[in-house]
Amino acid sequence: MMDTQTLWPYIDHTLLKPTASWTEVQTLCAEALEKKAASVCIPPSFVARIQKTFGDLNICTVIGFPLGYHTTRIKVEEARAAMEDGAGELDMMINLGEVKAGNFEALTGEIAALREISAGRVLKVIVETCYLTEAEKIKLCGCVSRAGADYIKTSTGFGSAGATVADVKLFARHIGPGVKIKASGGVSTREELLALIEAGASRIGTSRGMTILG
Amino acid sequence: MMDTQTLWPYIDHTLLKPTASWTEVQTLCAEALEKKAASVCIPPSFVARIQKTFGDLNICTVIGFPLGYHTTRIKVEEARAAMEDGAGELDMMINLGEVKAGNFEALTGEIAALREISAGRVLKVIVETCYLTEAEKIKLCGCVSRAGADYIKTSTGFGSAGATVADVKLFARHIGPGVKIKASGGVSTREELLALIEAGASRIGTSRGMTILG
Repeated sequence: MMDTQTLWPYIDHTLLKPTASWTEVQTLCAEALEKKAASVCIPPSFVARIQKTFGDLNICTVIGFPLGYHTTRIKVEEARAAMEDGAGELDMMINLGEVKAGNFEALTGEIAALREISAGRVLKVIVETCYLTEAEKIKLCGCVSRAGADYIKTSTGFGSAGATVADVKLFARHIGPGVKIKASGGVSTREELLALIEAGASRIGTSRGMTILG
Repeated sequence: MMDTQTLWPYIDHTLLKPTASWTEVQTLCAEALEKKAASVCIPPSFVARIQKTFGDLNICTVIGFPLGYHTTRIKVEEARAAMEDGAGELDMMINLGEVKAGNFEALTGEIAALREISAGRVLKVIVETCYLTEAEKIKLCGCVSRAGADYIKTSTGFGSAGATVADVKLFARHIGPGVKIKASGGVSTREELLALIEAGASRIGTSRGMTILG
């Protein structure tokens, strides 16, 4: 039986709505420190301010988010700037147009480019499952694994649906041995959270941690 | 009475869904050339390919899109890269966290930074009206005007609502003399399109041009 103290270290305590203000972000950071969340997951424009104000907090931010159709060059620049600002974890969104065109080598190459400049930091790759076929999900497990990313992540929270137990189980069967799973998007009850962890998720992204776990 | 031929030059012929593929983008570009649309409005990762394939087509792309919370530094890099790739028009999304914090000078500063590097190109500033109070909308008309942008634009199409006639009329009363209005997001009938132009819009962003105007 997992209790609240055991569960918080699974949580990327998240605030990614477009109107998020510095006041709200500061509250989120204080909660993350108190509860010992894995990280705060926040917009790039807040990273530097959080680093200055909250010191040793683990900061996760998003790259090419949420639509993923920035150029690789810009995603690399975003990642570099976010790390300079103090980010320890990078959640990058893949280019779905390339998925739909079947360009899986290009997708692997983009992830590898992000991997190359983020050595020593945690790199998570968002695939946005709600727009993918099962075959595409399996192929993307291969891309993420070959490129050496730390995590495959289900969802941005801005797509038409979020994490499912079925997708986490599918990923668990197809990722390489060094890759972990982050489930995110729409996680809103303790039961869902436990089911996703049971299915194989090592990290849960949610903006509802305080409601779910208190 | 405005006919179809008169209306197409108002249209930024748009495809910004995250799964947009090169095949779909090529169709969009061919339609835009045939119909004499004002531009194609497409993801940054397609700009270079369009420039190579379609030569003299006017290419509009998006910056800090759709959530607006990239750092100014990255928005500037995005704009620079997009122009190098061949973009003639840049639709940038403002930082709504700064709006909610009341930092209108910072907002003007960011728009001015984009203006400075985009001289000779068309700069449109998306304010995402669905998340704004009337007072914020009016203040943003001032920011956009002072920073010297070409257009204020209502919506990304990814917010909770899109362009309204009331917002276009409000902008028309509060923007500076050199600023124009782009209405976008959810425009799906000829009547809406005509009403937005009548209210003061000089440009309409829509992915439904072929359905509305044929």
